[in-house]
Amino acid sequence: MSAQAEIRSLFEPQSIAVIGASSVPTKIGYKLLQNIVEMGYQGTIYPVNPKGGTILGLPVYPSIRDVAGDVDVAVLVIPANRVYETVVACGEKGVRHLSIISSGFSEVGNVEEEQKIVSYARAHGMRVLGPNIFGHYSAKVSLNATFGPRDIRPGNVAIITQSGALGVAMIGKTSVQNIGLSAIISVGNKSDIDETDLIEYLIHQEETEIILMYIEGIHGGDRLVAKLKEATRLKPVIVIKSGRSKRGAMAAASHTGSLAGADEVFDAIMKQCGVFRAESIQDALDWCKYLSQAPIPRGKNSVIITNGGGIGVLATDACEKYRVHLYDDTERLRLTFEEVTHGFGSTKNPIDITGEATRQDYETALLRALEDPDIHSVIGLYCETAVMDSAELSDMIRSTYVRFRDAHKPMVFSIFGGELTEEALVSLAQDNIPVYRDVYEAVACLGVLHAHGRNLDRPVERFEPGVVDTRAVDRILDAALAEGRHFLLAHEGQSILQAVGLEGPGGGVAKSISQAVELADSIGYPVVMKVVSRDILHKSDAGGVLLHLMNREEVMDAYQTIMHNCKTQVPDARIEGVEVVRQIPPGMEVIVGGRRDRSFGPILMFGLGGIYVEVMKDVAFRALPVTRKEIMTMIKTIKSYPLLLGVRGEPRRDIEGVEAVLQRVGDLLLACPRITDFEINPLMVYPQGQGVMAVDVRVLIRDREGDPS
Amino acid sequence: MSAQAEIRSLFEPQSIAVIGASSVPTKIGYKLLQNIVEMGYQGTIYPVNPKGGTILGLPVYPSIRDVAGDVDVAVLVIPANRVYETVVACGEKGVRHLSIISSGFSEVGNVEEEQKIVSYARAHGMRVLGPNIFGHYSAKVSLNATFGPRDIRPGNVAIITQSGALGVAMIGKTSVQNIGLSAIISVGNKSDIDETDLIEYLIHQEETEIILMYIEGIHGGDRLVAKLKEATRLKPVIVIKSGRSKRGAMAAASHTGSLAGADEVFDAIMKQCGVFRAESIQDALDWCKYLSQAPIPRGKNSVIITNGGGIGVLATDACEKYRVHLYDDTERLRLTFEEVTHGFGSTKNPIDITGEATRQDYETALLRALEDPDIHSVIGLYCETAVMDSAELSDMIRSTYVRFRDAHKPMVFSIFGGELTEEALVSLAQDNIPVYRDVYEAVACLGVLHAHGRNLDRPVERFEPGVVDTRAVDRILDAALAEGRHFLLAHEGQSILQAVGLEGPGGGVAKSISQAVELADSIGYPVVMKVVSRDILHKSDAGGVLLHLMNREEVMDAYQTIMHNCKTQVPDARIEGVEVVRQIPPGMEVIVGGRRDRSFGPILMFGLGGIYVEVMKDVAFRALPVTRKEIMTMIKTIKSYPLLLGVRGEPRRDIEGVEAVLQRVGDLLLACPRITDFEINPLMVYPQGQGVMAVDVRVLIRDREGDPS
Repeated sequence: MSAQAEIRSLFEPQSIAVIGASSVPTKIGYKLLQNIVEMGYQGTIYPVNPKGGTILGLPVYPSIRDVAGDVDVAVLVIPANRVYETVVACGEKGVRHLSIISSGFSEVGNVEEEQKIVSYARAHGMRVLGPNIFGHYSAKVSLNATFGPRDIRPGNVAIITQSGALGVAMIGKTSVQNIGLSAIISVGNKSDIDETDLIEYLIHQEETEIILMYIEGIHGGDRLVAKLKEATRLKPVIVIKSGRSKRGAMAAASHTGSLAGADEVFDAIMKQCGVFRAESIQDALDWCKYLSQAPIPRGKNSVIITNGGGIGVLATDACEKYRVHLYDDTERLRLTFEEVTHGFGSTKNPIDITGEATRQDYETALLRALEDPDIHSVIGLYCETAVMDSAELSDMIRSTYVRFRDAHKPMVFSIFGGELTEEALVSLAQDNIPVYRDVYEAVACLGVLHAHGRNLDRPVERFEPGVVDTRAVDRILDAALAEGRHFLLAHEGQSILQAVGLEGPGGGVAKSISQAVELADSIGYPVVMKVVSRDILHKSDAGGVLLHLMNREEVMDAYQTIMHNCKTQVPDARIEGVEVVRQIPPGMEVIVGGRRDRSFGPILMFGLGGIYVEVMKDVAFRALPVTRKEIMTMIKTIKSYPLLLGVRGEPRRDIEGVEAVLQRVGDLLLACPRITDFEINPLMVYPQGQGVMAVDVRVLIRDREGDPS
Repeated sequence: MSAQAEIRSLFEPQSIAVIGASSVPTKIGYKLLQNIVEMGYQGTIYPVNPKGGTILGLPVYPSIRDVAGDVDVAVLVIPANRVYETVVACGEKGVRHLSIISSGFSEVGNVEEEQKIVSYARAHGMRVLGPNIFGHYSAKVSLNATFGPRDIRPGNVAIITQSGALGVAMIGKTSVQNIGLSAIISVGNKSDIDETDLIEYLIHQEETEIILMYIEGIHGGDRLVAKLKEATRLKPVIVIKSGRSKRGAMAAASHTGSLAGADEVFDAIMKQCGVFRAESIQDALDWCKYLSQAPIPRGKNSVIITNGGGIGVLATDACEKYRVHLYDDTERLRLTFEEVTHGFGSTKNPIDITGEATRQDYETALLRALEDPDIHSVIGLYCETAVMDSAELSDMIRSTYVRFRDAHKPMVFSIFGGELTEEALVSLAQDNIPVYRDVYEAVACLGVLHAHGRNLDRPVERFEPGVVDTRAVDRILDAALAEGRHFLLAHEGQSILQAVGLEGPGGGVAKSISQAVELADSIGYPVVMKVVSRDILHKSDAGGVLLHLMNREEVMDAYQTIMHNCKTQVPDARIEGVEVVRQIPPGMEVIVGGRRDRSFGPILMFGLGGIYVEVMKDVAFRALPVTRKEIMTMIKTIKSYPLLLGVRGEPRRDIEGVEAVLQRVGDLLLACPRITDFEINPLMVYPQGQGVMAVDVRVLIRDREGDPS
């Protein structure tokens, strides 16, 4: 069965059992059953409690074993220590989904018990939601299997939440804000079912048009990334992830036991996936509400119409922040709006129709914008004036909005003033007309909508993995691991580079003078020579490194000098030989790396090299696999990208070379799961056409795939 | 008369004339008079209109000349073309202040007329507010001399606004939000009275506890900076400046004609002054409201109490963003809060009292925090639960808040849930209890309050100007200007460095081989030689620069080579000689600059040097004068500051040397107003104790102080 079909019966069960149903109204076991019954679920409901009797008019079964019919979902509202035996009973009964409300598992350190339960469940064909959750709601079958509020407003937004308290409160909050839900699912400890499983189903569920997630920590992020990339081409996905700050991440860890990864990595990967990240819950809900009803714009041009210059300027700032493109064909704008700017306004977008604008003026300006095929979205701003009062404004906005509702022209309004304006705001909001108190809020919503429009247009690009000589890599790794090493020596790193078709400084390890000369001859002069010995940590200090060796004679001298120096400085050192490599000419230094992230699996890193990478933190991350286009975007993301393009008369650098290296490092990480960390630092980037060269490679490895890195 | 006393009569006039008073209720001349009369101004009111008669029961004077008594303020509500003659009449009458409502002046390009009016007024002892304004309001004398809403809620916030439409709407908005105003002043074109004049008065006005400004552009920012530094030690100053974005700045320019300076400069200087900058109007109003009633905390320690882990984590993130310090004595926190965390909550701050917390638990936790002398402010968070409903919550918050209102323990609350929570929120907000919908809003308010507390504690540091040999500088500038140059040649720049006691590469211009040798001998080898010629722009390309000259022989050869090269490459070039300077050893490159900013006057700049300054824009700005401490903060502000401290085994750099250079460059700009731009790039910074050295100096000058730069 596909994962999607597997999850379907959680959202569309024909029958549900509540194990731990209670007749005591203050208990969760009562509240949950009551929600199911009173919200009007049409499937069969089986309350289960050893005490028997009836609750809410339903016969109570002493045990799940006593239920006659099939059970799609069993909700467990019982103490932690009785969960396992009940899960066993559910397995015997052939239950398909367990929703384990009970807490007292991994979130308080009781990891083993949780794993035992999940193992049993999975072995017996059951999927597990939770434990440590408030339940789930599915509008499709009017199922409110939560202990939260009874009334949930049905609609098109699906919420997945890792925090129970927040989730319960969100049910109420969304209702207050007129946001309808297609589903809300509490994932809690995510012992089995996680965001990815749920999204897989929700992508294709017709009722769901928007997905909102509250996340504290992620496991198995590589699956999530693939699913999110797919989802955002179809439906907007909004995420709130707490733990942005260091201390916040610690607090999240102590809250759910999930170790939050570095926030920059999360942020970068969400952007890569086309997910919209909100800082605050309020922003997330505002965006959900707007996206749940606004049409997709047919182009990028937006126009600001305002009766106040000041808020016009503020909105312009907000447009830049939220990437809303302001239409800027000045001549066209002048022709279109000249008539309504009272001579002293402005047609330069913001279209300033001035404080003297009447209702009629404002309406004319709006219509002009809405009827112009080259204008694709409209921002309407209003400062309360005596010339046009808020009641007139409210009428005008309402009628215009309704008239153009189906015109594929998204609108947002922000209105500012006293009591009357406040009333207009409340009344318009009640009719779900997108009117905001603050200019930034309004523009943010429109910005997210435009970004979603761009997501929909994003061409599907296939990932094409490159060829990696995995047998060669495996030989190197096996040899290193056989010696008990979890890192590679320099020449081994070089061989890995070769195995993916990348150029390093070449060379190898010479065990004699004649080998050294041979190597130097083969790679070309000048060369660098370095002692190879695990006993000598600071090679330069020990006189074990010599640069600028121009010819055979110098190589011969150097070999002897290095041997002599090292034996004098570190008498007991075991010396394996002397490495001979090409001397790399200076270039622009960048860093290319890859590692296995605890949250997201294999990820790629790129940044400005040298001493600045640590201090300026000018780096970009992407989850693997990445397409060629994603790599180009990644390179352009770093702030120092102009240096690669060439500034102050410096030449454009070989960006194509950098791109190729990123691609190959990505291939390597995907093909060789035992490599946990791979870093080329620096990678010298030469002027365009002259390529790049890896100077130093650092590789960490592990014994087996899946081992902790 | 001090400026402060001068402005007082604008805010506390004994009498006011409305010139252009009208009996037609739709006219501004009626509305304004009506506002004055109906809001209950107790001074004498003189309506003026050639038609005479009575309006609103007051006798109308045909001309201001006909008024018998003194007139402190004359409000002009007449067409632009009649303003000047009326101002003359006011001058003759001895009016003290003109509030010119009329528009049609510099904002539409009519600069001359505006200047004529101001010149006349100032010459006749009158100060001018406006033109192009909606008027002003002063709670102290219940004077509403605006054409905005009649009812203005009196209180302790003073608003200065450059945008009229926004200002009018703010009157209504503040009233809706329960924010009382001590004053609101529309400054419009700022032809005479500007923010600085008003702040000077408001600093000492008892009624005003908070100052809020909406700014689009600034002139005479150096006066403003001094005044803001003074003000923020006493009262919080909040600013909204639009035109953050490039396009926003353009829109602002077309709106008021004021050229906004670079936003980064504005932002940096506001921070220097201790001003709080809000991005959106809503944030600014939230902060105003909170600051207008919250007590100043007695220390930095804050505690988060929450019944939901998720919002606790979000609040922790927000605390980092808004610099709210979370108390972190874990042992102490455990002892204090252990009892209320239900075993599975957390005492680690956020104090998570879990979803099972009752009203009693929450109250206990709050009291523990409020009674602990080491906890100085409290953030209370709530997710709606069945265990503690919103009505209970509302009661509990209200009683606790009232009980500790005078305890110098600021509190903020953020509550999240459905209909009942919404009701609690509205009811608490009506009582001015600081409860917010969003966690970030709540924490932002507390953050601004803590920052204001730090401002109050800021020690007053005296600026001590250094000695500049202004006569030496003047000689150099005079000579350059006499030649018609507005830039200095390299050796002149060197002399300027000497005049402020800074070390440059030394040397000078040789006109012969023997002079070159003499110079080289005096500064020491190695030296660099460069051709001096205004006809040769690309000196290196012309073979006019030679490096690494180690002795007399090489200097002699070099002189001849340079002359030969240049004459061959640029045959007609007039060659003034060859500059001989010390060859500077490499160090860490930084840039130190100063210039006269259009908005803020003399400002200082510091940043990471080399090719990165352009790309990374890692620079800091300060308005002059700066104290030693401000310079240290400035240096620490740049992101690459750790490079100066030394990373990856690099030595700590001579930060004291950098500090001294910044100080001296500041002194120079203050002492020599004809220098418009001064830039040392790069300044080489050597390891601590080894000093710094200016490699290249660029100086631009102007003919006279006050000339456009």
